Amino acid sequence: MSTIPVLDEKVQQKVEQFKKLDEKLCHYNDVLGLLGWDSKTKAPKKGRALFAKAIGTLSTESFKLSISEEMGEVLEFLTAEDVWAQLDEVTQACVKERKKNYEKSKTIPADEYQEYVILVNNANQVWEEARENNDFASFAPVLEKVLAFKKKFAEYYGYEGHPYNALLNEYEPGLTVEKLDPLFKELREKSVELLNRIKASEAQPREDIFAQDYDVEAQKKFNAYLLPLIGFDMDGGRLDETVHPFAQSVNTGDVRITTRYQKDNVRSAIFGTIHEAGHGMYEQGVKAEYEGTVIRRGTSFGIHESQSRFLENMVGRSKEFWTYFYKDLQNHFPNQLNDVSLDDFYRATNRVDASLIRVEADELTYNLHIMIRYEIEKALFGGEIEVKDLPKVWNQKIEDYLGITPPSDTLGVLQDIHWSFGGFGYFPSYSLGNLYAAQILYTFLKEMPDFYDKIEQGDFMAIREWLKENIHQHGKLYSPNELIVKVTGEELDAKYLIQYLEEKYSEIYQLS
Amino acid sequence: MSTIPVLDEKVQQKVEQFKKLDEKLCHYNDVLGLLGWDSKTKAPKKGRALFAKAIGTLSTESFKLSISEEMGEVLEFLTAEDVWAQLDEVTQACVKERKKNYEKSKTIPADEYQEYVILVNNANQVWEEARENNDFASFAPVLEKVLAFKKKFAEYYGYEGHPYNALLNEYEPGLTVEKLDPLFKELREKSVELLNRIKASEAQPREDIFAQDYDVEAQKKFNAYLLPLIGFDMDGGRLDETVHPFAQSVNTGDVRITTRYQKDNVRSAIFGTIHEAGHGMYEQGVKAEYEGTVIRRGTSFGIHESQSRFLENMVGRSKEFWTYFYKDLQNHFPNQLNDVSLDDFYRATNRVDASLIRVEADELTYNLHIMIRYEIEKALFGGEIEVKDLPKVWNQKIEDYLGITPPSDTLGVLQDIHWSFGGFGYFPSYSLGNLYAAQILYTFLKEMPDFYDKIEQGDFMAIREWLKENIHQHGKLYSPNELIVKVTGEELDAKYLIQYLEEKYSEIYQLS
Repeated sequence: MSTIPVLDEKVQQKVEQFKKLDEKLCHYNDVLGLLGWDSKTKAPKKGRALFAKAIGTLSTESFKLSISEEMGEVLEFLTAEDVWAQLDEVTQACVKERKKNYEKSKTIPADEYQEYVILVNNANQVWEEARENNDFASFAPVLEKVLAFKKKFAEYYGYEGHPYNALLNEYEPGLTVEKLDPLFKELREKSVELLNRIKASEAQPREDIFAQDYDVEAQKKFNAYLLPLIGFDMDGGRLDETVHPFAQSVNTGDVRITTRYQKDNVRSAIFGTIHEAGHGMYEQGVKAEYEGTVIRRGTSFGIHESQSRFLENMVGRSKEFWTYFYKDLQNHFPNQLNDVSLDDFYRATNRVDASLIRVEADELTYNLHIMIRYEIEKALFGGEIEVKDLPKVWNQKIEDYLGITPPSDTLGVLQDIHWSFGGFGYFPSYSLGNLYAAQILYTFLKEMPDFYDKIEQGDFMAIREWLKENIHQHGKLYSPNELIVKVTGEELDAKYLIQYLEEKYSEIYQLS
Repeated sequence: MSTIPVLDEKVQQKVEQFKKLDEKLCHYNDVLGLLGWDSKTKAPKKGRALFAKAIGTLSTESFKLSISEEMGEVLEFLTAEDVWAQLDEVTQACVKERKKNYEKSKTIPADEYQEYVILVNNANQVWEEARENNDFASFAPVLEKVLAFKKKFAEYYGYEGHPYNALLNEYEPGLTVEKLDPLFKELREKSVELLNRIKASEAQPREDIFAQDYDVEAQKKFNAYLLPLIGFDMDGGRLDETVHPFAQSVNTGDVRITTRYQKDNVRSAIFGTIHEAGHGMYEQGVKAEYEGTVIRRGTSFGIHESQSRFLENMVGRSKEFWTYFYKDLQNHFPNQLNDVSLDDFYRATNRVDASLIRVEADELTYNLHIMIRYEIEKALFGGEIEVKDLPKVWNQKIEDYLGITPPSDTLGVLQDIHWSFGGFGYFPSYSLGNLYAAQILYTFLKEMPDFYDKIEQGDFMAIREWLKENIHQHGKLYSPNELIVKVTGEELDAKYLIQYLEEKYSEIYQLS
């Protein structure tokens, strides 16, 4: 039994001061989140460049506050050994996180940071147009500037080993090239081996089911119907439409997700929506009392991605999910699906294909897409390639790994939004998400053996509550590693994802 | 010929310092504008109260900057007589405006201001629900708090004569009860006299045309078709849907307007959209070089309203407007309109009726609605009535002035958004807008005698360019009074609106 320490008056006062600073920074961050959402979903063309300056001003103010003398003093006071021991767990987690940011941010001059923020806000627009026009050359100059900033930032932050480690650490604290290489190696080898067996199988799922047009308005209706049923709270969130789907928290009562609708790709909207709902439900599920503190959001990009992957793949691509929803889907698309059996539909949703677009890749080849980006980023930061080489290098790797050639940069190197916002180091999180998700699944199955029955009965609230109880509610209280150990009893291990993929595809492709 | 003064180095430096402060305040204001728009159009229910705190934080930061020591010093330096004479016209206008705000804001303690901002953000939500549920009692306590703040603010600002003058001055600089009473008196007397002649006329326009259902989707299509044609730039703006239509600038390239669609009220959407487009085009038309300065917006609420009224009434309710657009409207609503002649339609759009809802009142009775609110506000600030009396007082005045009785508070005292955001003193601007608009019209007709021919030919760009050249481009460079004298050669006079109403209704109602 632990006793709650009584804070002395001076400590109490400093804790209050810290909480005010913490809350103010949260408010700036919430507002900037909303502004980012707006610029991607609603802002008219002519206003975006002008507004980028306002966003820059706000980011700078927030940044200045995060590295202010006041913040430095409070953090120093609260982290002194005798004071630290008096703080509760939540306050410790908040102070720790702010201190980490403080120390990191102190290394970047405020002017450079503002310039960078304005740059990436414009870069996003340039990328979007370049993608539409298949015009990498128009994006290259701004991407070079973004990369130059990021390389400089890596030097400011400092790193051991590979310069790219400084970037990896941004998204998954503590992650390095040295840790990631063996995890990815095991996954790559087993994936390739499984892929070959799948290719050789004679039990190939049907290709024709999704090679039909699906009315966009009916897609919108089905998504609007599905979203609240799987556990996303529509009173505390929204669904909008963007080229590249994303989730953005404004606060725990306002989490916004987007999807995209294409007539010739009904899967994109459905699984995109379920995926982003997984992100959104994580943020909606954080304890209300963490609102206004730095730990009110998910703990890392990898764990975040585990929640979206879990919902999209482990839940949304299961046979049981479609046992529950398939009739509804048929009602939305009778011409396309009334003659398609549930089993054919389920197998088609899990068809493995080497394809061009990451976000639409199957669960198996997806990780190969990630490894391509990972290797390119490592090489950019290692100085082995330059921005101008990207289309060539990209196409070569797609050919080497997947045996196909992008017919355009739109379907190749320009497909992802990430580099336009400076998100180098982000991509590995996606495969980490898959790895975490599978490991969580096997724990979940142990604790709730009727997991798949629940799905088949449409009891998604039971699924959500388990995730909320074990993962969502904690926000950033625990580090990703602490959390995965707390939930599953062990550190991240590639064997669970490999086992999951083996089991799933063995059944679908009738592998021996 | 004037010579451009060469600024000495110290003055130059202070001007630069001022411009940076001015721009930063503009950025805060732009962001707060967007946040306000978002909370009314997009934000999910559960997030709004939480987000109000973030808005409060940002408002406070902006407020603190506007009354900072730095701002005070720069303003004092630049307004010293010998320095002032060296400044160009634009800088003078900006300094003057910031100084006015500085002096006003200095009087309100920052804490109280933050509390007030949070209050009105919540009040808006409370009002919306009260309106939906016809439940004035649920709105009264929060309205009392808003009013108490505003009364306190009036004392802080100071005033001569009636306490309400402090509020009027917020919206129309220099306006007082003493100035407004005679203008309104003349307008009221002539309006009542004209209204009686109209009531007695035998040439009543048809009532049945708008007493039909008009499909909401078709309304949306017609509005989306109309809006860019009448001059609103869709690359620099948006149209959304809200309970109460409004226009909100984010910057000169991002001006957002809203409208509402009701199946049983097609006029509301069409004329609401044209009205808000008039506001929007004013803001879109401000000189690009004013972006980032305090004069980048319209000069007063009254002048702003003149632009929306001009477009809605002088243009949008003219016979020539519908000569151009009626065929299109019929194509959108063939069942409702194919058997209705243009003349019958035009006369029906200008039918005069004593009705309950201000925003849907005709041009003539509209001003009577304003006078009711004006008198209520005067009485609230004069201490003659209290918030709890409002439903009773409201209903009595509606009966006295218009001879009808609201069947519910939803259609009565709860209909307007204004009090929920503390907008006491705002309402008179609407009638000022009508007065300005008519005066501008007669100048326009002198300078462009084929004004109505242009409308009939659909040449709305010619109309927009004249307004841009004479009014829009100047932003807040001139005070409302300076501007109306500059454009029309004389100060505001009620005779033009009276003449306009006389001419219009004499023709429609065949008055002798």
